[in-house]
Amino acid sequence: MSRLDVFINRMVSQRACLNYAAEQTGDMDGPVFELGLGNGRTFDHMREIMSGRPIYVFERKVESNPASTPEPEMTILGDVRETLPAALERFGATASLIHADLGGHNLEKNDRFAREISPLIEPMLAVGGLMVSSDRMYFDTLTELPTPPGAVEGRCFVYRKDK
Amino acid sequence: MSRLDVFINRMVSQRACLNYAAEQTGDMDGPVFELGLGNGRTFDHMREIMSGRPIYVFERKVESNPASTPEPEMTILGDVRETLPAALERFGATASLIHADLGGHNLEKNDRFAREISPLIEPMLAVGGLMVSSDRMYFDTLTELPTPPGAVEGRCFVYRKDK
Ligand SMILES: C[S@@+](CC[C@H](N)C(=O)[O-])C[C@H]1O[C@@H](n2cnc3c(N)ncnc32)[C@H](O)[C@@H]1O
Ligand code: NI
Ligand code: NI
Repeated sequence: MSRLDVFINRMVSQRACLNYAAEQTGDMDGPVFELGLGNGRTFDHMREIMSGRPIYVFERKVESNPASTPEPEMTILGDVRETLPAALERFGATASLIHADLGGHNLEKNDRFAREISPLIEPMLAVGGLMVSSDRMYFDTLTELPTPPGAVEGRCFVYRKDK
Repeated sequence: MSRLDVFINRMVSQRACLNYAAEQTGDMDGPVFELGLGNGRTFDHMREIMSGRPIYVFERKVESNPASTPEPEMTILGDVRETLPAALERFGATASLIHADLGGHNLEKNDRFAREISPLIEPMLAVGGLMVSSDRMYFDTLTELPTPPGAVEGRCFVYRKDK
C-alpha cells in the first residue's frame, strides 16, 4: 500500500462516516461541531450534506481555502483543550454530531492527543448524537459503531451516545 | 459536489491514470519523471508500482514527508521551466512516463502554466511513452487517450507519443 492508497482510503472513509452520521442524526436539533478546519474540505462537505444545521468550527488558526471558510460567528478560535470546556458551558450536552480530524503525521502524538481530548468531547453529545473521528478515541460511556459501508476499517471511527 | 468529493475524485483519478500508464510502459527502459513532489504521495505510489525503474523528481523546493523523499541523485532541483530543457539535453527523448501535478488552487493560473510547459515536456518522451497530468496539456504531436477505467473524466489526462 502506497501513501497515496492510505490517503485515499482515509478521505473516502471520512466521507462515508460523515454521510452516515449526518443521515443518522438528521432529525436532531442540536449543533454540529467540526474540530479542526484545516483546508476546509470536510467542512465544505459537512455543510453540503447538513445544510440548515448549525455547524461550529473549532480551530487554532484559520488557514482554510477562502471557498470553505466558516462565518466568524460560527468559528470558535483557540486550542480545543480550552475551547471544548468553554463550549460545554455554552451549549451543554446538545451536540448532534461531532467530527474530529485533528491529527498530523505523528501517529503516536495523535493517539496521545486523542486520549487527552476524549473526556472533553464525551460530555458534549446529546443522547442519540454521533462522534466521527479519524483517530481511535477513548470514551467511557459512548458505544463504538461498526464502520459504515464504503469506509475502510480502522480509517475512521464512529461512536454514539446511547443514553 | 463538495470540495471533498472533488479532491477524492482527483486522487482516485491520479492513481488510476498512473497505474494504467505504468502498466502500458512496463517494457520500456527509459526514465520516469515526476514533476512536482509536494507531499510525496504520488511519488510514493509511483515507486511502489514501478519498482526497479529510475524515477527522477523535479521540484522547486523539497518539502515532502520524510517517508517519501527521493534520493538526492534522483532529485532535480529548480523551476521546471529551467530544469526541463536541461533534462532534455541530459536524457534526450527517452522518458517512458512523465507525471505532472504542478498546479495549485488557482485554475486559471494552472492552465496558463500548463500551456507554458507543454512544449518543454513534449520532446522528452520516447516513442510509446506516456504523459499523465492533473491539468489539460497543450501538445502538438501527442495523442490524448481516453480516461482509463476508475478515473473520473476531466480529473486526469493521459497522452501518448505515437511516433
Ligand atoms: C500539488 S503539489 C504535488 C503533489 C503531489 N502529487 C503529491 O501527491 O503529494 C505541486 C508541487 O509542484 C511544485 N511546483 C509548482 N510549480 C513548480 C515549478 N515551476 N517548478 C518546480 N516545481 C514546481 C510545488 O513546489 C509543489 O510541491
Ligand atoms: Ni507500501
Ligand atoms: Ni457543491
